[in-house]
Amino acid sequence: MSTTPRTQDELNRRETSHLIAADKVEGTAVYNRAGDRLGAIDNIMIDKMSGKVAYAVMSFGGFLGIGEKYHAMPWSVLSYDTQMGGYLVNLDKEQLKNAPMFGRGETVDWENREWGTRVHDYYRAPYFWL
Amino acid sequence: MSTTPRTQDELNRRETSHLIAADKVEGTAVYNRAGDRLGAIDNIMIDKMSGKVAYAVMSFGGFLGIGEKYHAMPWSVLSYDTQMGGYLVNLDKEQLKNAPMFGRGETVDWENREWGTRVHDYYRAPYFWL
Repeated sequence: MSTTPRTQDELNRRETSHLIAADKVEGTAVYNRAGDRLGAIDNIMIDKMSGKVAYAVMSFGGFLGIGEKYHAMPWSVLSYDTQMGGYLVNLDKEQLKNAPMFGRGETVDWENREWGTRVHDYYRAPYFWL
Repeated sequence: MSTTPRTQDELNRRETSHLIAADKVEGTAVYNRAGDRLGAIDNIMIDKMSGKVAYAVMSFGGFLGIGEKYHAMPWSVLSYDTQMGGYLVNLDKEQLKNAPMFGRGETVDWENREWGTRVHDYYRAPYFWL
């Protein structure tokens, strides 16, 4: 939230081998194992009680923010690939087409356990709330 | 990371009773129980392996980003207060003066367990890595 620009040095300091700054996660590209660029991380949703990242929200499609769609992905399905400089998910483009998604204007009922279960089941991820 | 401005409606959707968007945490004010404004959240640091928020980095002092200092606070010491519209920490201004801090240009050795232990001990917080 600082108003002065960050230097590359500063950006480098925002990621270490174990910790990463949330604002560095945002904007990072997401690829699948075939090397297809699927989208980029738009935001991350944090579970206030446990302090755990529940979802990484990936944006895809659209142009300059118009017509973008979003997938809420369980954080646990993303792994960072230093060579790609982005996150990897083990899904082909076809599989992702059927994944739960929402548009920019749509309301997501994050609290809805049924919806959360459906998302986690889709990605075969352990439920973040357990 | 979208280029179109967010509406208030959209911002409202970014916080629910259990989940909060990382970009909504950033910029949020931090108060103590006496109502003193201590600073604002600059960023949050996530532990990649566990997906847990390790630290909330609070900026304070300075002007337009110049001369700012930072406290890395264990996430667990912050609680959100809906009335204040900000995070509460149970520390008076005097106690915070002696808390571990760093300047804008300074390198933080986030991986250093000794440093991490010192920070968590200062705030009497459970270690995030356990």
